[in-house]
Amino acid sequence: MGTRKRVCAFLFSNPGLYQHSIAKLRLINGVDYSSSRRQFSVVNGEAIRGKQTTEQLYKHVDGLSTGAEVTAVKDQLDPFSLVSDEISPLTDRLRSMVVTEVPKLASAAGYFFKKGVEGKRFRPTVLLLMATALNMPVSMPSVDRLSPTGVIDNLETELRRRQQCIAEITEMIHVASLLHDDVLDDADTRRGVSSLNSLMGNKLAVLAGNFLLSRAFVVLASLENDEIVSLIAEVVEHLITGETMQMTTTSEQRLNMQYYMEKTYYKTASLISNSCKAISLLTEQTAETSTLAYDYGKHLGLAYQLIDDVLDFTGTSASLGKSSLSDIRHGIITAPLLFAIEEFPQLGEVLQRGFDNPADIDLALDYLGRSQGIQRAKDLALKHARLAVKAIDSLPENDDEDVRQSRQALVDLTKIVIKRTK
Amino acid sequence: MGTRKRVCAFLFSNPGLYQHSIAKLRLINGVDYSSSRRQFSVVNGEAIRGKQTTEQLYKHVDGLSTGAEVTAVKDQLDPFSLVSDEISPLTDRLRSMVVTEVPKLASAAGYFFKKGVEGKRFRPTVLLLMATALNMPVSMPSVDRLSPTGVIDNLETELRRRQQCIAEITEMIHVASLLHDDVLDDADTRRGVSSLNSLMGNKLAVLAGNFLLSRAFVVLASLENDEIVSLIAEVVEHLITGETMQMTTTSEQRLNMQYYMEKTYYKTASLISNSCKAISLLTEQTAETSTLAYDYGKHLGLAYQLIDDVLDFTGTSASLGKSSLSDIRHGIITAPLLFAIEEFPQLGEVLQRGFDNPADIDLALDYLGRSQGIQRAKDLALKHARLAVKAIDSLPENDDEDVRQSRQALVDLTKIVIKRTK
Repeated sequence: MGTRKRVCAFLFSNPGLYQHSIAKLRLINGVDYSSSRRQFSVVNGEAIRGKQTTEQLYKHVDGLSTGAEVTAVKDQLDPFSLVSDEISPLTDRLRSMVVTEVPKLASAAGYFFKKGVEGKRFRPTVLLLMATALNMPVSMPSVDRLSPTGVIDNLETELRRRQQCIAEITEMIHVASLLHDDVLDDADTRRGVSSLNSLMGNKLAVLAGNFLLSRAFVVLASLENDEIVSLIAEVVEHLITGETMQMTTTSEQRLNMQYYMEKTYYKTASLISNSCKAISLLTEQTAETSTLAYDYGKHLGLAYQLIDDVLDFTGTSASLGKSSLSDIRHGIITAPLLFAIEEFPQLGEVLQRGFDNPADIDLALDYLGRSQGIQRAKDLALKHARLAVKAIDSLPENDDEDVRQSRQALVDLTKIVIKRTK
Repeated sequence: MGTRKRVCAFLFSNPGLYQHSIAKLRLINGVDYSSSRRQFSVVNGEAIRGKQTTEQLYKHVDGLSTGAEVTAVKDQLDPFSLVSDEISPLTDRLRSMVVTEVPKLASAAGYFFKKGVEGKRFRPTVLLLMATALNMPVSMPSVDRLSPTGVIDNLETELRRRQQCIAEITEMIHVASLLHDDVLDDADTRRGVSSLNSLMGNKLAVLAGNFLLSRAFVVLASLENDEIVSLIAEVVEHLITGETMQMTTTSEQRLNMQYYMEKTYYKTASLISNSCKAISLLTEQTAETSTLAYDYGKHLGLAYQLIDDVLDFTGTSASLGKSSLSDIRHGIITAPLLFAIEEFPQLGEVLQRGFDNPADIDLALDYLGRSQGIQRAKDLALKHARLAVKAIDSLPENDDEDVRQSRQALVDLTKIVIKRTK
C-alpha cells in the first residue's frame, strides 16, 4: 500500500485524531504530520500551516516515498502548540503595533518583540486557551437567533479577534513593565558606563514603556468596552503599586508574609487574572464564569511567582537567564526565607541587617538550607496551582472537544508552571 | 448717601457690570469689589468667593465706612478669574484622585498637586473657558426637545462635569510628563548624590508618572467615549514622540526648523490642542467647530513654547524659575538660534560642535545678539497667537454673554502668553 493510501486509511480509521489533533502521525521516513481541525502541518524542512483539506493533505503525502509507514504516537498535549497558529500572527501584529517614525523609540519599544527575544508568549497562550475554554453557547437576543449561520460565524470571528486584542494588550503591558523595571536594573548594572549612555538608556526605557502603555490603551479603546478599559487601567495601577511596595518596604513589611503575597499579587498575578476576566467579559458569560476565569489567572500567577522565588535559590544562572540569588542580593525577601524565619527566628535578625556584609548572605542561605523554607514555598505554589485547576473544573460543563481540550491545556499549564526548572 | 446705597444705586444703574463682571467697583477706602453672575468677591484682607446674591453683597457693604465712594474702573478681564470657582474644586479632585495606599507613591504622584506647587492650572483654565465658549445650542433629537427644562439643566450639568473631567485628565497627563522629564533632570543634577537616592528618585518618578497616566485612563474610561479615549491615548504617544525626537536628534535634525516645530507640536501643543478638541467632541458640535477648538489649542501651544524658548535667552533665572540658557546648555537648539543661523551660517558650525567648550556658548550668544533671531522667534509666536485668535473668531456666532465673555478670555490668553516675561 502506498504512503497516501496508508495515511488515508489511518486517518479514516482514526477520525478523532484528524479532527482533534491530540496525536501525531509519524511516518518512518522521518516526516511528521500533526493535524487538527484548525490546522494541518507538514514539517519536512519547511512548515506548512493553516487550515488544510484532506485533498491538500494528499498532495503532500503523494510526494513521499512509498516506503513510509504510518503509526500513531500518543503525544502529551502541548498547551503552547494548541494556539501556536494564532500566536505567530499575534506576534507579528505586536511588532507592527510598535512601529513609530522615531527610530530609537521604535527599536527600544520593539526590543522584546524581536525574533529570538520574544519569549514563550506565556500570557497570550493562557488567554487564547481561556478564550476557547469559555467558548460556550451564550443566550442571545431572539433577533440574533434568527440570523443566518454566516452572521453567527462572523460574530464568533469578531469575538475571537477581540479576545486576541486582549492578549496583545496584556503582552504590551507586560513588556512595558519589563522596560520600566530595566530603569532600575540599568542604573544598577551599568554603573561605570559613560553616564550619557546610561542616561539615554534609562530615559529611552521609560519612554518606550510609556509608548507601549499608550499603544495598549489605543487598542483597548478600540474594543469599546468601558468595563474592560477600567479593568486594565486598574491592572496598570496594580503593577505600579506592587513595584512601589517592593521598593519602599519598611523593615517590618519586608519580613511579613501577607505583605509579600499582596505585593506578589499586584506585581505578577493581577495582570494575568484580570486579563483572563477580560476574556470572559467579552464572551458575556455569567459573573460566576468571569470570577472563575479570574481565579484561574490569579492562582496560576501566584504559583508562577512562588516557583520563580524558589528557583532564585535553587536554579542555576544558565537555566534562569539571570543570576541566581538575585532577589536576596537586591534585599528582596521572598517566600522561602519568610517560611525559614518561622523555624529560625534568628534568621529574621540577619535579614533585617540588610546584606552590606556578604557573609550575611551565606549565613541566611545556611539557615534556609536547614529549614523547610524551599519545600514550604513549593507546597504553597502547589496549593495555588490546585486552586487554579479547581477554577477550571468549576466551569459550566461543556461537551465541545475544543473547549475540553483547551481546559485540559490550562490544567496542564499549571503542572508546567510547578515543574519548571527555568 | 451711605456706602450701601451708593453701591446699590451704582449696581442698579449699571446692571451689565453686575451681571457680567467686566468692570471692577472701586471704593475709595481701598476695598475692591469684583462681581460676576457666577461670583462676587470682596477683597478686604480675605477673599470671599462663590455665588453671592445682592443681599449677601449688601451685608458686606454695610460694614464699610460711609465715606466710601463708588466709581467704576474699566478693568481688563482676567481669564483665570472667570473659571477660578471651578478650578479650586477641580484641584481638590485631582488631589483626591492621586491617593493610594502606598505612601511614597502617593507623595510622589501628588507632588505637583500640592498647595503652592500646583502652578497656574493653565491647561484646565483654557479647557473650561473653551467649554463655555462652545456652549451653543445643539440640535437634539425631537424626544429630547420635549423634555422638561429640568432634564436639559441636568444634561448641561452632566456635560460640564464631563468637560471638567477632560481638564483633570489633561492636567494629570501634563504632570505625568513633568515627572518623567524629571527622570532625565534628576540623573543630571543629582549626580554625586548617593546613587541609591537618585535611583529611588528616578524609579519613583517613573512609577508616579505611570500611576498618573493609568489614573488618567481610568477617568477617561468613565467618560465612555471611545473617540476621546483614542484621541487622548494618541496625545500620550505624541508627548513620548516629542521627547524622544528631542533626545535623539541627528546633527542635521538639530538645526532643522521644521523638525523643531514638529517636535514642539508633539511635546507642547498636541496635549492642549487635542484636549480642546475633546471638549468640543463632548458638546457634539460640528466637525468644523472641533477643528477650530483644536486649532486654537495648537496655535496657543506653539506660541507658548516659542515665547518659552525666547525667555530661555532673555529671561532672568528668578523670573523663569529655572536657569536661563538651560536649553543651549543641554544642547537643545530652539527657534531664536535657528533663525540666527539664517543670517550667520557660521553659527551653525559652532552649534554643530556641541558645547564641550563653554566659550562656544558665548560665541553662539554673540551671533544671536547680532541677529534678528529673538525678534523673529517672537514674531513667529505672534503669528501663531493671531491664528489662535482667528480660530476663536471663526466659531459660529453666539449672543450669549457667557459664551462671548469666555471667547474674549481665550483671546486675552493669547495676549498673556505673548506678553509674559516668566
